[in-house]
Amino acid sequence: MNNLSEFEKTIMPIFLSELEDYVDSYFTDSYKELQTLFQYHLGINDPPAQQGKHIRPLLTLMCCVGAGTEWQKSIPAAISIELIHHFSLIHDDIEDNGRLRRGKDSVWVKWGLSQGLNAGDAMFTAAFRALINLNQQVSTKITLDAVQLLSDICQRLTQGQYLDIDFEARAFVSGDEYLEMVKGKTAALISCSTKMGALIGGFSKNEQSKYEDFGEALGIGFQIYDDWLGIWGDHEITGKSITSDIVDRKKTLPIILGLKESSRFAGKFVQSEISQEQAILMAKWLQQDGIEKSVISTYRSWTDKAFLALDKMDCGENVKSSLKELANKLLIREK
Amino acid sequence: MNNLSEFEKTIMPIFLSELEDYVDSYFTDSYKELQTLFQYHLGINDPPAQQGKHIRPLLTLMCCVGAGTEWQKSIPAAISIELIHHFSLIHDDIEDNGRLRRGKDSVWVKWGLSQGLNAGDAMFTAAFRALINLNQQVSTKITLDAVQLLSDICQRLTQGQYLDIDFEARAFVSGDEYLEMVKGKTAALISCSTKMGALIGGFSKNEQSKYEDFGEALGIGFQIYDDWLGIWGDHEITGKSITSDIVDRKKTLPIILGLKESSRFAGKFVQSEISQEQAILMAKWLQQDGIEKSVISTYRSWTDKAFLALDKMDCGENVKSSLKELANKLLIREK
Repeated sequence: MNNLSEFEKTIMPIFLSELEDYVDSYFTDSYKELQTLFQYHLGINDPPAQQGKHIRPLLTLMCCVGAGTEWQKSIPAAISIELIHHFSLIHDDIEDNGRLRRGKDSVWVKWGLSQGLNAGDAMFTAAFRALINLNQQVSTKITLDAVQLLSDICQRLTQGQYLDIDFEARAFVSGDEYLEMVKGKTAALISCSTKMGALIGGFSKNEQSKYEDFGEALGIGFQIYDDWLGIWGDHEITGKSITSDIVDRKKTLPIILGLKESSRFAGKFVQSEISQEQAILMAKWLQQDGIEKSVISTYRSWTDKAFLALDKMDCGENVKSSLKELANKLLIREK
Repeated sequence: MNNLSEFEKTIMPIFLSELEDYVDSYFTDSYKELQTLFQYHLGINDPPAQQGKHIRPLLTLMCCVGAGTEWQKSIPAAISIELIHHFSLIHDDIEDNGRLRRGKDSVWVKWGLSQGLNAGDAMFTAAFRALINLNQQVSTKITLDAVQLLSDICQRLTQGQYLDIDFEARAFVSGDEYLEMVKGKTAALISCSTKMGALIGGFSKNEQSKYEDFGEALGIGFQIYDDWLGIWGDHEITGKSITSDIVDRKKTLPIILGLKESSRFAGKFVQSEISQEQAILMAKWLQQDGIEKSVISTYRSWTDKAFLALDKMDCGENVKSSLKELANKLLIREK
């Protein structure tokens, strides 16, 4: 496998089929509806374009190759990480009152809040169970280390989510607090994906932490870019309405910086309702008052960190250049 | 330690202090509010009488002694099981719209649904993280087996919860379906508590399954007794209003059997609202139509199974008689 496209073509069909088999085997006949719910959320029977990008498992499988081991060994871990990602989305949709997910009703909208909440719990559990299957591929010590890594990451994930919910009710949030939230909510699981590959490949703690650094910087850059898209992105590509983050009063990076540094933006933001037209004007203010520039500069510093960390990784050349391709794809999605 | 009271006096203060230390050490300064939420739900600063009974960790610690090992070794597992129990209560309260828990506002009522839901996730994570600390006490193999046991049990727990929510919307539920639900929702974690002690004590799979059988039958008996209390229990002792399960239309065993076997009960049950007076009359019908007798007989068959399983366990005599005391206390709470 010499480039990203070859990795994707070789690895992903097998990964997706293993994920499907795992979900099939996880449920007995009494729980077929719960299985349907898993399949629905994971998009197992949807057209490929609507199934999501599976970035996290792809990173784990590629990093495992990078660490000199067959990618097949890390399939249980890749399944586990993908399930953790989806558990967090199911609960996120309840917490954010998100009614749509990839163009379909969210699980809680379709099955009700109680079943939606419980399905997230069931998926959380299924993720830990999947990871134990790693012991069929690697030593008991590495398997337990993987369980510890995943539970440490879930701690950061739930703490990041705590901050995200907390921010909603607060008038001001500092840049440091924002970074702490993003490190937990978004970057933790991406850094887990890269570190997990290095762990399964048998790398030392020191080398694992280089893979982790790459994943973390990639995750933070990815999130800041997403925040930029939420205000200035092409709505036909993002699928969001223009400036929706301003209308919905999300505490994204441009808004957090705007509240601190642009008094006309801050003054308007505290008003009871913000119309589409006002939001378009406010987005312009953020540009004129130097906020967009500042967001882009923060974004660039994290993408630089990601590529620097990637350079330092002990990793086969083909994997390294393919990871670089993937990072470019993730970080520069439409420009 | 010769009897239950000696076990409780020796073990529980140390367990509770270790639980408190674990919660303290789990959170850094940025997450003190999330820590407060954990402490609030766990009742860490409440008067002892309001802290709950800690039956599950007590069972684990006692069964570990029964299997010939120092109880201190199983503290990480006991903490883990207690946290899983509380995670399930936090989410249960959201799913059942339960506004009070042990006389206090439920977590989601006090902190809002989003933080409540996320706190449950954080507690689930903290439970798995606690279990990994077992590796400081026992082999990596036994630690990973313990993680597998816990994740298998969480699978049954979430599946039992799925059935419980599903039953609410259904007109009829069979006795077998009820049993499947109770095995997951209540008995699974109690059987985990007893089996975990045997596992940490180094017992074979065969011996572990005897401990598991005891826990499962104890859990089922416990739940059926609770169902009986929900209709005929002394409301001053249970803290519930008389016949509240009928008024709230819960699918407990007496109600499930009543719907099937008492046409006058079934006819009234489908009405739009049931008053307190009607519920008292309906509870009488359940007695007159032989339902209470049938519930008590099912209950007795499970308590018999529990004591039979206990007899078969390879277990020191002092522990065995103390477990018998505990089972009697749990199963015959007020008679």
